[in-house]
Amino acid sequence: MKRNIQPRLTLVGAGPGDPELITLKGLQALLDADIILYDALVNPELLKHVPVGVRKIFVGKRRRAHTYSQDQINALIVDLAFSYGHVVRLKGGDPFVFGRGYEEMHYAESFNIETTYIPGISSSIALAGLQGIPVTHRGVSESFWVITGTTSSGALSRDIEIAAQSSATVIILMGLEKLSEIISLYRKQKKDDIGVAIIQNGSLPTENMAIGTVDTIEEIARQEGIGTPAVIIIGETVKNHKDFPQSLANWKYLLN
Amino acid sequence: MKRNIQPRLTLVGAGPGDPELITLKGLQALLDADIILYDALVNPELLKHVPVGVRKIFVGKRRRAHTYSQDQINALIVDLAFSYGHVVRLKGGDPFVFGRGYEEMHYAESFNIETTYIPGISSSIALAGLQGIPVTHRGVSESFWVITGTTSSGALSRDIEIAAQSSATVIILMGLEKLSEIISLYRKQKKDDIGVAIIQNGSLPTENMAIGTVDTIEEIARQEGIGTPAVIIIGETVKNHKDFPQSLANWKYLLN
Repeated sequence: MKRNIQPRLTLVGAGPGDPELITLKGLQALLDADIILYDALVNPELLKHVPVGVRKIFVGKRRRAHTYSQDQINALIVDLAFSYGHVVRLKGGDPFVFGRGYEEMHYAESFNIETTYIPGISSSIALAGLQGIPVTHRGVSESFWVITGTTSSGALSRDIEIAAQSSATVIILMGLEKLSEIISLYRKQKKDDIGVAIIQNGSLPTENMAIGTVDTIEEIARQEGIGTPAVIIIGETVKNHKDFPQSLANWKYLLN
Repeated sequence: MKRNIQPRLTLVGAGPGDPELITLKGLQALLDADIILYDALVNPELLKHVPVGVRKIFVGKRRRAHTYSQDQINALIVDLAFSYGHVVRLKGGDPFVFGRGYEEMHYAESFNIETTYIPGISSSIALAGLQGIPVTHRGVSESFWVITGTTSSGALSRDIEIAAQSSATVIILMGLEKLSEIISLYRKQKKDDIGVAIIQNGSLPTENMAIGTVDTIEEIARQEGIGTPAVIIIGETVKNHKDFPQSLANWKYLLN
């Protein structure tokens, strides 16, 4: 006897890594799922919330092993929604921050599948904060600009060149492999002394960080052995970090 | 008999309004608090999680009634940490996104008070998403720039002028009163046809939105009676919204 299936898709942001940084609403979706599709950046601890008997399918991309193409994931979501009912698509960070979440949602909607978006804590804001680096700070930074290092064309985003001329805190996701290119854009603006932090595996016990300036960061990242996944944060607010030699924090505070 | 007091401060991001958008970690902090200080943008529903007997102090700013200055809040945190123990500072959105959270944390640390930051869902990303507008979308937007409309000097941030020249999705918090000024910066770049959405009380039952283009948004916002608190989103990705007359979503998707 087949039950009456209501095809649905819920996109859930899993947050930056720490499994306690999912929202209550995200957790409720996991409890209510008929099937789960999850990515490489999702902490497996989160899957323990999923009721026994609910299938969990890994559709993430791992280096040199592209298990599913984006088109295949889109098609899978639709197939599974019609055969299982409530599909929960669990993605690292927030589904709409370079997660291709909108493509999945839009594709499902074209089949008249009901969709819901549940935001997640984005690595772009939280990982700096967890290291004591505020992305904004009165008197130091009145904006932050989040840019992907990996555009669809493979080239560095032109936005990074403009960003290097602004006073924004610049946060680059998936940009580690282009670090030299990014740094040279800042050097061109004579911003050699701007603070830079690179955080790998942020919010997890394996977290590793390199911190320095435009001038020193490449060498420090090499010494620290920083690898992916990593977030790059560039801006004067990085100097608020307690380990920073000329910590801005003390005197900036007094000036306010 | 006085118990042994361990002064501590936890900054907790309450999220954009919907009380289910707090994180598990944030909720745990509320359960563990000895005293709570909360802001105007925090949903009162969240305070129901706080154990009976724990004092909750409102320190928010309301129009024409600045109950506490920032210096007074900083001093209060320190006093209360030494007299009560665990102070939980509950802030709307994320504490480090224009929340002056770093100032509070830094001040407490100067008294050797142990501090913790628990990120929250930032309105800057989530409110667009909840309206079906992704802040990034492959082929349309490869970055987003979050800017305050209200700088410490009171003037419009110069970053908005640069932003109007970039291809970033631009998200302006606390900028509704400067809407005309912002719009004229986009007109100067001949970007009259760029999409604009303004979301008031996002994620709450009272949510209200105006959506249009640089050309039409001021009139539409007036018609809809949009007031504060509101988030302004400017960029081609706004045209992904289902109500948008020339919805980009369909053909852009096919081009990918």
